[in-house]
This record gives sequence, structure tokens and C-alpha cells, in this order.
Amino acid sequence: MEEAKGVVKHVVLAKFKDGIAENKIEEIIKGFANLVNLIEPMKSFNWGKDVSSENLHQGFTHIFESTFESTEGVAEYVAHPAHVDFANLFLSHLEKVIVIDYKPTAVSV
Amino acid sequence: MEEAKGVVKHVVLAKFKDGIAENKIEEIIKGFANLVNLIEPMKSFNWGKDVSSENLHQGFTHIFESTFESTEGVAEYVAHPAHVDFANLFLSHLEKVIVIDYKPTAVSV
Repeated sequence: MEEAKGVVKHVVLAKFKDGIAENKIEEIIKGFANLVNLIEPMKSFNWGKDVSSENLHQGFTHIFESTFESTEGVAEYVAHPAHVDFANLFLSHLEKVIVIDYKPTAVSV
Repeated sequence: MEEAKGVVKHVVLAKFKDGIAENKIEEIIKGFANLVNLIEPMKSFNWGKDVSSENLHQGFTHIFESTFESTEGVAEYVAHPAHVDFANLFLSHLEKVIVIDYKPTAVSV
């Protein structure tokens, strides 16, 4: 099994609280994306709404994926004041959240 | 907000049942990866173990990401006999699972 050297993906699954306006959600997502400009080890960001049809999404409605060069980079990001401020705002709008970091590994079969 | 044309990411979070041997888990992951060879619309596969330190992983231990060219491609994959067989095996070894599909979107800020 082959590991992409050093790359760490930081995946956030979120369910926003009921009643939060769509434009507030958009504003929050832009704030998340803007962390790329503020926190050096954060290398990329993308997101999407759940469009699955298997009904195994457990109520989660949004997913956010950012990339880092190392787990140390993720730790620096987590502790960064810009992230702390954003996370306080973000989490206050969520009903539930899951965060997973992983080093993407391909499998040759 | 700019959407990568047509690409759909299929993300599976899993927690294996306690007591399942590590080599059984490896065998299952190889079976997952091998679906790329069997199901045409599945374009890539990678996976990783959770290495997060924020303690927001809710017990999930593994994440799997595959890519498709469209939501129709995901639907074809879900219904494919090779996937049905694999999913029956896979799910029987899991304590919990979340599946989310999304069209990755970048945000310019």
C-alpha cells in the first residue's frame, strides 16, 4: 500500500442547525475557505453538499476537505488564532460535526 | 464558487467492529480497492486511518474516498453486483458507517 508522501487530508462533516439561513451558511463557508489565505500550512480547501442516494449520510449535509503537508501542519492550523476564531463561529452553527484527518493511501491490487 | 466539472467524490467513514483482526481489515480494504478494476465508473480509490488529534472523530477509525465522473456513475457503482457483494461483506464487519457523496467546489475569497 502506497502512501502519498506527507500529505494529510482534513475532513469535516457537518450538519447545520435547522433554521440557519442559506446566506449565513455561504458566509461561513467563505470564512472557512479564507483560512487558506491566513494559515500557511493549509494548502487547499474544497467543499460540497451531500448528494448521496444511499441514505447512509446520517443527517450530515456538508463536507469540507482541506489538505496539509503534515500532521504537524494540521496541529499548527488547529491552534492558529484565525482557526480558533472561525471554529468558534462555525461550531456554534452546527448540530453535529465529525473531523477526521488521514494520509491518503492507494492500494495496488 | 466554482465546481469541478462533473466529478463526484464518494466518502465512506467506517468504524470496524471490535475484535476484527488487522489482516482481515487489510483484506477488506483490498477488496474495496479492487472495485476500481471491476466497476467502470469508479475512477480512483484511496483510504486512510484517522490520525486526527481534535477528538472529534466520533469513534470512526477509517475513511475511504473514491471518485466518479457523475452522480449517475455513483448510482451505477452502488447497483453493480461486485459492489453489492463487497458492501454486504464490508457492512457486516462495521459497527457504524457514514456515506456522503459531493461535488467538490472551490471558493475564491
